Amino acid sequence: MKNIDHIGIAVKDIEKSNLLFKKLLNTPCYKIEEVKDQGIKTSFFKTGDQKIELIASLGNHSPIESFLEKKGEGLHHIAFEVSDLKSEVKRLKSEGFIPIDETPKRGADNKMIVFLQPKNTNGVLIELCQEIR
Amino acid sequence: MKNIDHIGIAVKDIEKSNLLFKKLLNTPCYKIEEVKDQGIKTSFFKTGDQKIELIASLGNHSPIESFLEKKGEGLHHIAFEVSDLKSEVKRLKSEGFIPIDETPKRGADNKMIVFLQPKNTNGVLIELCQEIR
Repeated sequence: MKNIDHIGIAVKDIEKSNLLFKKLLNTPCYKIEEVKDQGIKTSFFKTGDQKIELIASLGNHSPIESFLEKKGEGLHHIAFEVSDLKSEVKRLKSEGFIPIDETPKRGADNKMIVFLQPKNTNGVLIELCQEIR
Repeated sequence: MKNIDHIGIAVKDIEKSNLLFKKLLNTPCYKIEEVKDQGIKTSFFKTGDQKIELIASLGNHSPIESFLEKKGEGLHHIAFEVSDLKSEVKRLKSEGFIPIDETPKRGADNKMIVFLQPKNTNGVLIELCQEIR
């Protein structure tokens, strides 16, 4: 794990939330991106070297839709930047953590990503991400 | 808002979670601190320039105890570093955000802190913190 790359926040209405977070963070959203494979629409805000990612559902029973139904809006995940996704997943598995997907998936923001099972991490959904070069 | 200072995670058993997060983050907890005013015990982990703060209840119906009862373990708050707490609270109030406490409180890690009402921030508990010099 190198550092926190971003914090993901689940929201219902991304346009409304973009305006709210612009006021809150005193900086505008710099990127909006749909990740159709995951059924999400995301927007990004810079806060120093980190990012805040707002995530809304595109419908179709996406995992974010289930999250919003169960828990409502709010903090969704922490993403840590790693320099070598495969070796970090290997290290974490040897420590007893369980990746949700066996192989990395393409995420938003030009990243390959792996999530860990939150039941092994005090209920916190952890994403590992590595930039695609 | 300057940057993310730390992410707060609510846990039931802080000793057990310290071991878990040591394995997860591949770095040991570098500080343990009780904040009796707030009824909490905290531990800190460095991840790059940011920190992960684990927070457990000392009992006595602390806000963390209520959080754990209602929502269970997991992501609790994002803390942003600010250079001038009073002027940032003033700016945020002018934008319609509502501080939970009218005056800054002493938090863990040598900080003066203010939380914002999460009902105005998509359910996300936001902490503003300024280092005490």
